[in-house]
Amino acid sequence: MDDIDIETVADPKLDDPVLIEGLPGVGHVGKLAAEHLRDEFDGELIRRVYTSDFPPQVSVDDEGVADLTCAELHAVSADGTDLLLLTGDHQAQSNAGHYRLTDAFLDIAEEFGVSRAFALGGVPTGELVEEYTVLGAVGEADQKEELEDAGVEFRPDEPAGGIVGVSGLILGLGKRRGLDAACLMGETSGYLVDPKSARAVIEVLQHTLEFEVDFASLEERAEEMEEVVGKIQEMQEQQSLPTDDDLRYIG
Amino acid sequence: MDDIDIETVADPKLDDPVLIEGLPGVGHVGKLAAEHLRDEFDGELIRRVYTSDFPPQVSVDDEGVADLTCAELHAVSADGTDLLLLTGDHQAQSNAGHYRLTDAFLDIAEEFGVSRAFALGGVPTGELVEEYTVLGAVGEADQKEELEDAGVEFRPDEPAGGIVGVSGLILGLGKRRGLDAACLMGETSGYLVDPKSARAVIEVLQHTLEFEVDFASLEERAEEMEEVVGKIQEMQEQQSLPTDDDLRYIG
Amino acid sequence: MDDIDIETVADPKLDDPVLIEGLPGVGHVGKLAAEHLRDEFDGELIRRVYTSDFPPQVSVDDEGVADLTCAELHAVSADGTDLLLLTGDHQAQSNAGHYRLTDAFLDIAEEFGVSRAFALGGVPTGELVEEYTVLGAVGEADQKEELEDAGVEFRPDEPAGGIVGVSGLILGLGKRRGLDAACLMGETSGYLVDPKSARAVIEVLQHTLEFEVDFASLEERAEEMEEVVGKIQEMQEQQSLPTDDDLRYIG
Amino acid sequence: MDDIDIETVADPKLDDPVLIEGLPGVGHVGKLAAEHLRDEFDGELIRRVYTSDFPPQVSVDDEGVADLTCAELHAVSADGTDLLLLTGDHQAQSNAGHYRLTDAFLDIAEEFGVSRAFALGGVPTGELVEEYTVLGAVGEADQKEELEDAGVEFRPDEPAGGIVGVSGLILGLGKRRGLDAACLMGETSGYLVDPKSARAVIEVLQHTLEFEVDFASLEERAEEMEEVVGKIQEMQEQQSLPTDDDLRYIG
Repeated sequence: MDDIDIETVADPKLDDPVLIEGLPGVGHVGKLAAEHLRDEFDGELIRRVYTSDFPPQVSVDDEGVADLTCAELHAVSADGTDLLLLTGDHQAQSNAGHYRLTDAFLDIAEEFGVSRAFALGGVPTGELVEEYTVLGAVGEADQKEELEDAGVEFRPDEPAGGIVGVSGLILGLGKRRGLDAACLMGETSGYLVDPKSARAVIEVLQHTLEFEVDFASLEERAEEMEEVVGKIQEMQEQQSLPTDDDLRYIG
Repeated sequence: MDDIDIETVADPKLDDPVLIEGLPGVGHVGKLAAEHLRDEFDGELIRRVYTSDFPPQVSVDDEGVADLTCAELHAVSADGTDLLLLTGDHQAQSNAGHYRLTDAFLDIAEEFGVSRAFALGGVPTGELVEEYTVLGAVGEADQKEELEDAGVEFRPDEPAGGIVGVSGLILGLGKRRGLDAACLMGETSGYLVDPKSARAVIEVLQHTLEFEVDFASLEERAEEMEEVVGKIQEMQEQQSLPTDDDLRYIG
Repeated sequence: MDDIDIETVADPKLDDPVLIEGLPGVGHVGKLAAEHLRDEFDGELIRRVYTSDFPPQVSVDDEGVADLTCAELHAVSADGTDLLLLTGDHQAQSNAGHYRLTDAFLDIAEEFGVSRAFALGGVPTGELVEEYTVLGAVGEADQKEELEDAGVEFRPDEPAGGIVGVSGLILGLGKRRGLDAACLMGETSGYLVDPKSARAVIEVLQHTLEFEVDFASLEERAEEMEEVVGKIQEMQEQQSLPTDDDLRYIG
Repeated sequence: MDDIDIETVADPKLDDPVLIEGLPGVGHVGKLAAEHLRDEFDGELIRRVYTSDFPPQVSVDDEGVADLTCAELHAVSADGTDLLLLTGDHQAQSNAGHYRLTDAFLDIAEEFGVSRAFALGGVPTGELVEEYTVLGAVGEADQKEELEDAGVEFRPDEPAGGIVGVSGLILGLGKRRGLDAACLMGETSGYLVDPKSARAVIEVLQHTLEFEVDFASLEERAEEMEEVVGKIQEMQEQQSLPTDDDLRYIG
């Protein structure tokens, strides 16, 4: 296997598709959002991307069948807007791997004529979130207005530590390639898998890309998490704050 | 030395050999099983595989003679079935190294005409095991029936974290090469070197590949471990559970 | 993107420029000093250096606009002396990366005809500093006299652990290329961002390279830090020494 | 700079030289021994080996002059026996780096016609050593007799964890090149820089390679350490065993 190994599964013609990235990260917000779009719009798998920068690992499905860890690109038509959805279970495991992998993703996107990209993710607030604000970052200042119309907030120098991983590089490397790239980050506690934050991010996309998606399955998942949140709030009221470690394994 | 350096020791003709991998891992189940087959069937060393992804290390034998760390492939005839046994003292030490090394192993297997592979390992249960179930994962669903006949269990999405290391990649990369690859994982506490779990795994191979092997030496080792287990159970009854660290150095 | 990717922003003619390096390090002394010179002398951005050895990250500016992490070279004229100022938010993240990156910086410096370089940094004393001594290290002994005249101290075998990172390599790799390279290290507690130490380092450069710079903005920053230092001294007097972790996040 | 960069300082003709490696390791036994031979026999520097697997670092000498971290090879004539002494302040910082670096050392050794090598080191006993035994490991069993005559002990499967780092690879990779390589490991507590253990190792070399060296400077250093050992024994008698961390910084 080469450092990066791209497997072509299908090669549909897409009409000015928009790249949407949702790899694992804070609250799995980006991953939940991209997977939701893939599932609701019944995506067609078009590429698998393998790399030796992913963990040396297979995942086992519900039939006991194992497959090598990879990232996947699905094509969907969202009410007439073509989307290229990038999902997977892993980020790269090294600095150079992140750059290599993102370059590979952007190469595929170019191949399909992508000129616009959204990297989805979460931004941790450290506390339970009441109102699900979506924070934005863009490659060029003139991209902001359209996103602000969709409710996205831009805050000076935030997120403070910058945006890391594939999301950050889709924006950073994409911008250097002349791609119209933005990052949408749903506020989330950082402790829990957060379907509500994922919904807030999708709502921005709905507004901007003019499609509508059903949220029933995401809401169901959110309700399960609500129960968890309820228990955590109870614990907090009893003054026994759970530690980060307690929370890390919930959800 | 190159990244991977393969030393040819012998080049016997093998008849449709089956690759059996047993590198170090949980409970050393795979390693014990593969070494047991190598020793009982009096294996012939055919290849040494050196790599700069192994620790920079020599091991010293009982004569004070040192040899560079490597993985070894032995050929054995198990009641008429040719096996290619892959053993060694180390896994690769990096992600990319795991991929590179497994590709090298699969190249050698192809050279000998291998069309079927079993990656052996252990799956940790976190508690002392009473009944030694063998968990399976396959590359294609149609491989399951034969293994289920031999007592292998397939559980949806298990093991939960996937299968890591060379074992996982023998399955994942092997499948991508069209190899009929399966992973056999003996349940084991995860705290102790576990010859009983290794025996359970070998029994599946006996049934599937139709050979018989003597278990006396493995049983002897198991009895030594039983004594250790007995002591642990005593400790547990006295409510002083040993920590993982205590157990890690037993056996 | 290649391992190193150099973007040419401008290509001014410079007259025997002096390379001044100020990447992050102890007390951010070097970074503060180089940025101060860049800002006071109104530097012209001439090169951006990207590398996959930097964290996979974009930083977000006060407009919400994101840019890929890079190091920057600015040209300034300091009272007639041309300076090439190297600044950035990151060191490389691997050993080989440090060497690669420094070689790239030195290549650019050679291109502009640099024959003299100063690597700026801090040297930790472990306690609050009263008098801001600047410690020096040079590539050749005959460079010392001029620096000693400017108040630089040379102490046998100090700093004890050598000089690490890009600063060390500007000196070590620069010397091997025949560059007249020196390291100026301001004494600093190691706990705080230290504008006073940065000023002490700049004063050496002023004396040696014959320019004058205004310190108002650096002094303002220093006064803010003074308040922090005052609080720390209070805490120490109350016998509750703050831990390193407390201090790491101040400033 | 390339991954490995070899600087030729001198190219003397050597008569069947013996390679002696003494890089940093347990108790700095190998380093002390090789440096002692270099200094006592007034070695001629013949090669500097730079590599990006060393820390990105310069060391500063007693004049404040800095030099890039490297390993050095000195040639000495020890009572008519030519030695090639390999010393330095660092091991490589990665697995692959160890292999690459050792291959470079062995290439230089081949260039000078080396057919025999000794890798010097320490083996930790975990307690203060009374009698300084030297443990051996060899590439081929027939090398043992001569070393046993010189007092070297060979113990089955010891050291238990094998021999790591450049010392291990000089033996492991050297053997694969047909070099007559052995490892001499002085027993040492593992807590202290140990000149006495270094002397024990040199005495083996004296006997085997038939030279004599003065030990005055090594004994002086040993006496300084004796004082430290005395203080530690006092502490132990007072039942306040120093921790590993206390000891790590002594000597």
